[in-house]
Order: sequence, then C-alpha cells, then structure tokens
Amino acid sequence: MAKQEKIQVGIVGYGNLGRGVEKALNLTDDMEVYGVFSRRNPNDLDTPSPAYHMDQLDDLKDKIDVLILCGGSQSDIPVQGPALAKAFNTVDAYDNHSQMNQYFGEMESSAQAGQKVSVIATGWDPGLFSMNRLLLESVLPQGQTYTFWGPGLSQGHSDAVRRVDGVKFAAQYTVPKEEILEKIRAGEKISYQAQSAHQRDVYLVLEDGADPVKVEEEIVNMPAYFKGYTTAVNFISEEDYMANHQGMPHGGRVLRQGSTSPHTLSMAEFSLSLGSNPEFTASVTLAYARACARLAQEGNVGAYTVFDIPLSYLSPKSAEELRASIL
Amino acid sequence: MAKQEKIQVGIVGYGNLGRGVEKALNLTDDMEVYGVFSRRNPNDLDTPSPAYHMDQLDDLKDKIDVLILCGGSQSDIPVQGPALAKAFNTVDAYDNHSQMNQYFGEMESSAQAGQKVSVIATGWDPGLFSMNRLLLESVLPQGQTYTFWGPGLSQGHSDAVRRVDGVKFAAQYTVPKEEILEKIRAGEKISYQAQSAHQRDVYLVLEDGADPVKVEEEIVNMPAYFKGYTTAVNFISEEDYMANHQGMPHGGRVLRQGSTSPHTLSMAEFSLSLGSNPEFTASVTLAYARACARLAQEGNVGAYTVFDIPLSYLSPKSAEELRASIL
Repeated sequence: MAKQEKIQVGIVGYGNLGRGVEKALNLTDDMEVYGVFSRRNPNDLDTPSPAYHMDQLDDLKDKIDVLILCGGSQSDIPVQGPALAKAFNTVDAYDNHSQMNQYFGEMESSAQAGQKVSVIATGWDPGLFSMNRLLLESVLPQGQTYTFWGPGLSQGHSDAVRRVDGVKFAAQYTVPKEEILEKIRAGEKISYQAQSAHQRDVYLVLEDGADPVKVEEEIVNMPAYFKGYTTAVNFISEEDYMANHQGMPHGGRVLRQGSTSPHTLSMAEFSLSLGSNPEFTASVTLAYARACARLAQEGNVGAYTVFDIPLSYLSPKSAEELRASIL
Repeated sequence: MAKQEKIQVGIVGYGNLGRGVEKALNLTDDMEVYGVFSRRNPNDLDTPSPAYHMDQLDDLKDKIDVLILCGGSQSDIPVQGPALAKAFNTVDAYDNHSQMNQYFGEMESSAQAGQKVSVIATGWDPGLFSMNRLLLESVLPQGQTYTFWGPGLSQGHSDAVRRVDGVKFAAQYTVPKEEILEKIRAGEKISYQAQSAHQRDVYLVLEDGADPVKVEEEIVNMPAYFKGYTTAVNFISEEDYMANHQGMPHGGRVLRQGSTSPHTLSMAEFSLSLGSNPEFTASVTLAYARACARLAQEGNVGAYTVFDIPLSYLSPKSAEELRASIL
C-alpha cells in the first residue's frame, strides 16, 4: 500500500456482515471497498460496489490490501480462512470459541507461508468483550468476571415462534434479568445459569382468527426453547411489527468485580447496545482491517488476535495526535 | 529478569498510590515488591516492605526490574520520571493531560539513552478511559464520545466544606446527573458543561451548637466550588461519618454514541465504580509494570503509552491460554 493511498478492502461474502462492512467503509476516510466477492453470480449481487466471483480473487493479489472474510464460522471461515491467508492479509469475525487455538494455528501456518498478516476473531464476542475480560482480569486479578448477552434478537427463537400455528410474524428478544445485574453491581458474588439469568420477550402478530391463549400456551411450554424460562408473550399489530421489529438489535455486557484490598471492591462494566448486530460487528472488523494493513506494511507476518495488537493500530490518527487528544 | 523468577518491583513514593501498589502486589503471583523508596527517612516509613532512601536507588539498578513512580504529577513525576528512566524501566500514572506529548518526549529521550522501557500515564484517566475512548472512536468513527467522572470523593471540595465555620468533618461527592446519562444512552446528542452535568453531594458533621441553616447557606453559595451547581447538604452523625465516609471512592464512565448506517445507532459504555481510587489506579499501574518488564525482556526500548501495548502483555497467562479461556 503506497502512502496517502486508501487501504483497498475486499469483502468476501455478501450476507448481513458483508453488507455491514460495505456500509462501514462509507464512514471512513482512509479505506475503500475494492470489491465484493461471492460464490454467487456477480450480476446477481445487489451491491453498489464492484462485484466479482470468488474465483477472480487469484488475479487480484496485488490490488487488495486486506480481505474481510464475512462468511459463516460454521462452515465457510474454517475452509476459506486458511486458504486465503496464504495469499492475502485477512481479517475475520470467526466466533467458534471452543476451536480458537486450532483455527489460530491454521491461520498462523498459512500467514507465515504467504508472509501475510491474518487477524482472527474480531467483532464483539469474541472481540471487544474478550478485550475487556482480559483487561479487567489483569487489573483486578482477584475477582469474578460475568458476561451477559442481550437485550438482543435471537434468530433461532424467533424462527421457533414463527413455526407455531396461528403466528404470522414474530421476534424474540433475550434479555438479561436486571435484578441479577444489580446484585453483581452491588458486589455480590453470584453463580448463575443462562436459564435463570435471562428472560425471553416475544412480540408476535397473530394470523386472522388464531386463539391467543392457545398460541401463548404452546410458546411458553416449548421444550428447549422456552420451557423453564421466564417468557413474556406480547401480541402486536402487523403495523407495529413492521415498524419496530424488523431490525437486528443486540448487545450485552461484561462485568468484573474485584478486590483491591481485603474489604475494598472495584466494579467495572463494559456494555453495548447495538441497533444492528451485523453492522456493529462489521465496524469492528473494519477497524481491525486498518490494523492488519498497517501491521503488514510494517513487515509483520503471522496470525494475530485482538489481544496481540496495540489499540493505536485501530485509529487513523497519529500516535502524537492520540496522545494529545484522547489520552 | 531470569525466567521463573518474580518480577522485582520498586515503589517510588509512599503516599496513597504507593501503598496501593504494595497491596496490589499481594494479589499477584508473578511480581513482588523489592522495596519502597522515599525522600523520607526509611525508618519513618510505616511499611511492611523493605524501605530505602531514594538515594539508594543508584546502587540497585541490577536488582529491580521495574520502578513504579507513585509521586504527584504536578511536581514529582516531571522531574523524577526523566531522571529515573535513564537507568530503570519505569511505569507511572502521570495525569497532566495537557502536557502529554512533552512528557512523552522527555521519557522517550531518557529511555532511549538508557536502553530502557518507560510506560507513562497508566491508571484510569488517563488509562482505561483513554483506551476506551480510542477503541470506541475507532470502531464507531461517526459519533460522539462523552466522559463523566464520579460518583467520587472530591478532596478539594471536601476541604472547602471543612473550612466553613461550624463544620467538624465533611466529605463531598461529585455525581453525574442520571438524567443526562439517560439522554445520551437513548441516543440524544447533547452538549454539556461540568456545571450542569454534575451535582454535588455533601455529607457533614456539625460542631456542637453550630447552626445548620447558616452552614448550608454558606456552602451552597460558595463561589467557584458550589455556586451554580445543584448541591445537596446532608447532616450526619460522627458515627455515620467515621463508618461510611472515610474511604476514597471514585469512578466514572466513557460513553460513545455512533452510527453504523444512517438510521442505526450503537451505544457503548465503559464504567468504573471504585471503592478506592488510589488502590484501583495502583492496580492498573501494576498490570502495566508486568507489561513493561516483558517489553524490556524482549529487548524493546523507549516510551510507551497504554495505546502502544497489546493487551496480552498485561496478563501473566500465555497467549495460548488466553485464546482458549478468554477470547
């Protein structure tokens, strides 16, 4: 990447995350989209950006500074990542917590082989939440860390409600119970399970003539999804649904209680409330794309996580400017 | 520092911060206090650690891995820092925001001259708050950042109240107004000034026979300190004061509102609620002492801020362990 030129970003995969990256690029001055890459026919992609077939990537190795891998963590990234990291600097939002070291190892091998930089598992969890867990545990070594997810739309639970007879549209939000958060903030050590720490709020539109009592009964007793949880079923109009429940909001929080001396507690909390889960995740991947390009430009190679990169690499500002304005 | 041996920490200055570092060292397994260094007579220091006069530092260059500078930012650190950084790895909590680049430049010169590492301006603001400002601005480039301080004890305002005739003991807490925080969290763009964004809560014990009405009048109308602020004066018993108002609690929050697309907002918030301001600040400096020792061990030299150091350096855990357990 020549100085003064914008970082050229390739978007691999054009679902919600890829679209989010495309939008996030509009908000930066130092990066721009080189193109969107998909296994679909480029002519079928409804994108304002140049569209390419995945197979065309091979010819564009010298044109693209960083690829952001926007496929799924289940089957796309584990295959695409190690293959592409041999020829491109890459950033991904791989989120399979239990396979991190294996995936890191594969990306490290590929990036070393290709003399490239790969930043893995960016986003918010893994990502910003992980960073706060590490930071706060390091500062307060004697204590407890709690992670809560939500309020947020659960796609799986929304789908389950939609399958109930008589339901026309539905959205299910998972919400941490405020009373449990308050106990933690007050310094109580608690043990909690997902089931008791979260409630489920359902907003649904009934089909004409459906029986609300029967629908509600079926939902709250649905095994695995709702049974055993505190579930609130709200019946709303189609207008309300279309106006207020079409987004993909999410969020959550990391809390750390820790002692600094025997009777003195500190409490730290990092929380996110996101209008769009995929757009925010995309914004994080894009900040790490900037870091990735800079690491590569400096001659570094290999795989990195959010733990391995100084925060200054995320910003377009100079170190001097950051010290003067933000420190 | 030989492998497997504990990082040897020297504490320079033995006020609240130095005592906090000493306590924080008890909570770690990989670091220990080498000694406390003061301009006072070492025999007069009420410390469980080995006590030395500052002048003895010169002879201990090979024994100490990191010095934590615990003096004041007004007059101690600007002199001690550049002098000590020529011979020792150092960490400080220098907090004069307006002089950062000048101080950084002096520490960089000294550390380069001595082939040492100096980490400056750790703590929570500057420090953890700065890190969140940088991180969140980088992820959400289109938006606003807000920093609030408190609820927290203000030493200067407590002293001012104590000077009022009829006041025996007093503590003044500065508290951000919840309604302003709620507006920000709801996505409103606001402009605020310290005066309208914070309220002042006073807890005081009257001298026998003092007139509460007169005392309250004098406090709420005190120019510069209270006039123009919302001030609540609470009269409490001496027992209550001794039991509940002897600590140095503090805290605050950094909030970032940002758009990820034209009509979609994200909200991020990092907050601290600290039983002891100096103990928590000390805990942060100590985590950066670990980072400082590791940077030096790897052969790095020069001055660093919290922006320049990967988070993994703060933890005693290996990169593999961090990826498996925290990422």
